[in-house]
Amino acid sequence: MTAEPLVIGLAGFGTVGGGLVRLLEENAELIRSRAGRDIVVKRILVRDTAKPRPLVPPSNTELTADPAALTDDPQIDAIVELIGGIRQARALIDKGLDKGKHIVTANKALLAEQGSALFEKAETSKLMLRFEAAVAGAVPIVQTLKESMSGNRIISLLGILNGTSNYILSEMTSNGLDFEVALKQAQELGYAEADPTLDIDGYDAAHKLILLIRLAYGVSYPYADLPVRGIRGLAAMDIKLAGEFGYSIKLIGEAREVRDISGRTRLEAGVFPALVLNRYLLGKVNGVYNAVRLEANAAGSLFFHGRGAGALPTAGAVLSDLVAVARGERADNSGFARLSLPEAAVLPQDDGRSSFYVRLTVEDRPGVLRDLAGAMAAEAVSVAQMIQKSGQGNIVPLVFMTHETTSRAMKYSLQRMTDAGLLTEPAVCYRVL
Amino acid sequence: MTAEPLVIGLAGFGTVGGGLVRLLEENAELIRSRAGRDIVVKRILVRDTAKPRPLVPPSNTELTADPAALTDDPQIDAIVELIGGIRQARALIDKGLDKGKHIVTANKALLAEQGSALFEKAETSKLMLRFEAAVAGAVPIVQTLKESMSGNRIISLLGILNGTSNYILSEMTSNGLDFEVALKQAQELGYAEADPTLDIDGYDAAHKLILLIRLAYGVSYPYADLPVRGIRGLAAMDIKLAGEFGYSIKLIGEAREVRDISGRTRLEAGVFPALVLNRYLLGKVNGVYNAVRLEANAAGSLFFHGRGAGALPTAGAVLSDLVAVARGERADNSGFARLSLPEAAVLPQDDGRSSFYVRLTVEDRPGVLRDLAGAMAAEAVSVAQMIQKSGQGNIVPLVFMTHETTSRAMKYSLQRMTDAGLLTEPAVCYRVL
Repeated sequence: MTAEPLVIGLAGFGTVGGGLVRLLEENAELIRSRAGRDIVVKRILVRDTAKPRPLVPPSNTELTADPAALTDDPQIDAIVELIGGIRQARALIDKGLDKGKHIVTANKALLAEQGSALFEKAETSKLMLRFEAAVAGAVPIVQTLKESMSGNRIISLLGILNGTSNYILSEMTSNGLDFEVALKQAQELGYAEADPTLDIDGYDAAHKLILLIRLAYGVSYPYADLPVRGIRGLAAMDIKLAGEFGYSIKLIGEAREVRDISGRTRLEAGVFPALVLNRYLLGKVNGVYNAVRLEANAAGSLFFHGRGAGALPTAGAVLSDLVAVARGERADNSGFARLSLPEAAVLPQDDGRSSFYVRLTVEDRPGVLRDLAGAMAAEAVSVAQMIQKSGQGNIVPLVFMTHETTSRAMKYSLQRMTDAGLLTEPAVCYRVL
Repeated sequence: MTAEPLVIGLAGFGTVGGGLVRLLEENAELIRSRAGRDIVVKRILVRDTAKPRPLVPPSNTELTADPAALTDDPQIDAIVELIGGIRQARALIDKGLDKGKHIVTANKALLAEQGSALFEKAETSKLMLRFEAAVAGAVPIVQTLKESMSGNRIISLLGILNGTSNYILSEMTSNGLDFEVALKQAQELGYAEADPTLDIDGYDAAHKLILLIRLAYGVSYPYADLPVRGIRGLAAMDIKLAGEFGYSIKLIGEAREVRDISGRTRLEAGVFPALVLNRYLLGKVNGVYNAVRLEANAAGSLFFHGRGAGALPTAGAVLSDLVAVARGERADNSGFARLSLPEAAVLPQDDGRSSFYVRLTVEDRPGVLRDLAGAMAAEAVSVAQMIQKSGQGNIVPLVFMTHETTSRAMKYSLQRMTDAGLLTEPAVCYRVL
């Protein structure tokens, strides 16, 4: 083999960066046989080069605290951005692209919130901006949407995209834990951050969904417009009741093409906890695993399942992108032959259609069921199933599963119940897939 | 858009060919946005152009019975081979490559049995020879192994690769049907051919496995050397008994890297019916679906599930290859930077290790269990679980699940039982995953 190695600058030497360095060594022969050349790390950008660190950089690799040592070195072909966050990462990638470097990143927040400008710059410069590791860890969904689904119209896309939330919900389900207990356990095991906001409030899944929408539909969906609801404070009781209907509750990121009332194609998307039938493959995604289900006009239903995080699974995804750079793949980074993507035509959130799980806490008095049913009938919401549980004293929980209706109708019926003073606690309402 | 269209010659206008023509029309706008150009069918090769056919070719598309009208037309950029079989398809592809055409094919038999020469010719001529549709229908496992897993060493690969067999086994399992009844039903529904040999005797799965091995390990595995056992005549009783242990029986194609007794890395591969735990995702693959599970050194476990056959699912896979051709992807068709692949270092079949399900039919007489146990102990096969069922008269079925052992030890213990006259019927033995 005579080809020159691909020389990379690695920004960030934490869990994933360390995993990448390890993989580059462990899989060196494989990489050579696949890419036809070696991949070598020339420099690693860290905050403090003097800080003692558990990981030893490979020989011939130099630590630096200066981003310019990556962006301005003409020997460096590609930059791997694993520092995370928005500002510094953006500056590094921007500068790297300006200097003609290919970029591989796992930074979903940056790409989802400010990616359009970066993608445009990359396309214009015919540089690769690859991000397989940014979505669903080891599950190769980026590549799949970009290449394998190129002959398919994606009807819908549904994912369990946040391992931390899925771990918490799994523990609540199988061990009957309360949310706070399960969260604490996830934090102790290192699955959740000290500040778990990004994960449990749905923002991490939202970032990933924005990227999937880009790849599946070739549109840019404004992050700020995406409806996002996380799992914080989700009640153990609802998990238990969902189970009685044969469902689990999962944090779902969904996008689908729908017709609006005037028949135009619109994109309906959001992140929300939802009831998923236990017998579906999606209902069997447990612990820190991620999964994506696609419905496509030729393929029908496709399902992908794998580890959503972790040093090596994520580093393996980064490495596949580096091999693609080493091989000299084409640079249509979103899978569409366009320099920039149009903005998504978004369905108004209230127009979204779904079945709903509704738990109401009411006073056990004559006529209350009639009044609740009336509030739903007034909005044309029809009930598919109901469970009435015995409550404490004369306060009883009532659970309904509705037929498909709009979010607006559901919201207005709950408002009617509240306005009529029927509820002794706020209603709990989740979508049913 | 000013780019010239990609002009294709389509060989074969049956189910999949018809599906492709339909998709090219239905998804035309999508294809244009993804590939940056149109894909047009200039000619369709059929056996008899005069034959009345249900499908109308698109306007500006000409039917021909002459392969040279595809291979020798300088306007044609790529040939889609969907005629199947070996001889004619090989001649067409050979000639097409000679004439500088890219090839897209769904022909697993040809590629598995005679692919090496074709791949070499394609690599040498820097032409694409793509075959996403040849393995697992709509499941994008070819692309995944070629691109997404390029940073991962594949430890093992396990697939349900034949939809017909899986349909038959699913029907036997859920409806308690006998093999012959389920086969007949599959034939009536069009899931099985009048001559079902390729499907139920495991050869179709074997063809696909050979291709997966090429992509996962970068080696050429001689088709004639692959151990293949199908599901023909599999007894309803074994499906029922497996169920009592919590397992389903699936037709599995497997390849994995193992160490031989002298510590060298060897490839163990084969197609065989095996017991799969019902709670595994693989145990939930039912009907005509296909699935692949990968174990990789960085990613850990990955699972892919989708339709294994059908006009549109297969045509969608063909189309993704065509979009790749239209985009001008690189032509490393096996995912390795080599003109030809080395031959696989194959583990002798008898050295393979597994747990086994063994059903023995014996006379119900004192000492028989001791003698059976003795035959196993003599080969160091140890028993994990046993069920004794009441039989007819004094003939009883005994079922053992063994601990992991070699195929050789298992075979020799059964031979010992036979030699000692312990069995009133031949032993039934399946691997347990």
